[in-house]
Amino acid sequence: MSNNPSIILVHPQLAENIGMAARAMMNCGLSDMRLIMPREDHLSAKAVSASSNAEEILYNAKVYPSTEDAIADLQFVLATTARHRDQTKMVYNADKAAALCAEKSLSGIRCGILFGPERTGLHNEDVCKADAVINIPLNPKHCSLNLSQAVLLVGYEFYKTQIDAKAEEFVTNHTHPANKEKVFGFLAFLEKELAECGNYKEGEKREKTLINLRNIFTRNPLTEQEINTLYGVVNYIKRS
Amino acid sequence: MSNNPSIILVHPQLAENIGMAARAMMNCGLSDMRLIMPREDHLSAKAVSASSNAEEILYNAKVYPSTEDAIADLQFVLATTARHRDQTKMVYNADKAAALCAEKSLSGIRCGILFGPERTGLHNEDVCKADAVINIPLNPKHCSLNLSQAVLLVGYEFYKTQIDAKAEEFVTNHTHPANKEKVFGFLAFLEKELAECGNYKEGEKREKTLINLRNIFTRNPLTEQEINTLYGVVNYIKRS
Repeated sequence: MSNNPSIILVHPQLAENIGMAARAMMNCGLSDMRLIMPREDHLSAKAVSASSNAEEILYNAKVYPSTEDAIADLQFVLATTARHRDQTKMVYNADKAAALCAEKSLSGIRCGILFGPERTGLHNEDVCKADAVINIPLNPKHCSLNLSQAVLLVGYEFYKTQIDAKAEEFVTNHTHPANKEKVFGFLAFLEKELAECGNYKEGEKREKTLINLRNIFTRNPLTEQEINTLYGVVNYIKRS
Repeated sequence: MSNNPSIILVHPQLAENIGMAARAMMNCGLSDMRLIMPREDHLSAKAVSASSNAEEILYNAKVYPSTEDAIADLQFVLATTARHRDQTKMVYNADKAAALCAEKSLSGIRCGILFGPERTGLHNEDVCKADAVINIPLNPKHCSLNLSQAVLLVGYEFYKTQIDAKAEEFVTNHTHPANKEKVFGFLAFLEKELAECGNYKEGEKREKTLINLRNIFTRNPLTEQEINTLYGVVNYIKRS
């Protein structure tokens, strides 16, 4: 079994929401779903259909009679609440909470995250069983979330801790970003072609236009293939 | 009008999904929804009900005949795609993309984010109209998201750029975290009470137990009120 955090749904009401929570878990690479006295059957057709191919999580889900039973084997438990509770407890934003779980999981500590019923959220008696509280930072004037969306946001933050932070990427359609020689080569070609047109702007205006053209094609990373396309376009216009 | 990014839904199919996208936008403090040829009516009862009190966003949404029209007044447009497209384009993870939008919005640049139809996602002809691509990092084996969930995750990342990063918080139920004098005072009291019980462990064993007790109550931040509770508990046991 992986040591990813368990997702514990306390008294979920609708089969559809359990299914959608399973889908969100699958999206985020989580697999251990625990259910405390669900009102509807988590293996019903509705739940399986809502899970959208994540039914494996539903079939493996375990059902417990109480929160104590559901978290008995866990060592670090977080409670997800939308409102601040009148309890003395650490509150972590979702990203910080995910980082904490990731760190603890790496040290072999079994973590779990509690989510309350759709209508009410977690009750105080469940919040006080958790080590700390997760806050999902959202518009305080409108922060009510669907159960599966709460699972998704917390799971997403956990998933982000598991991947290499790949800040940005330039998709190059299997060609290479052109080096400066190729870029300047095209610009020189373009300027030559413009000069040969004869009626091209003169003096200061001409210089300004050339500077604009150079900026257009240098601040924008071009691939070798795109530079070939640009040569082709200019040649085609010239011939027409 | 705020300068938060516009959310542009290209050919959304189901009224319910449009409503849920509005709800997700409201959760994340976004307000400008734009729709390109929705298949179902975004003001239908289904859409309004799914928006869960975010119907204001639906009523203010504008409908456009084409992507070009919908983004005509925008200056920086991102396309959300689950798969890498065979196009030469920058790809940013959602957090980086949100930071970029936030930065540009601050400089007065109007930003927008394109989301494709439920079944297919964005078509290539729409992706190539965007300045860059947003990737939502999720389990590559199961990354399909409901439209409103995609809006939620991207909106959430944007919302996070707008709040002060409040890493953690100790909710203290209106009392104060106790200072060390109060903590040590309680520990001394507890040790004295134990000693007075007479049959308490002796020698090395006793020292070990006292060290355990001190660790239990110092590694765990206690409020003044909780220390009073602990005094009360010990006194109560003593009397019984």
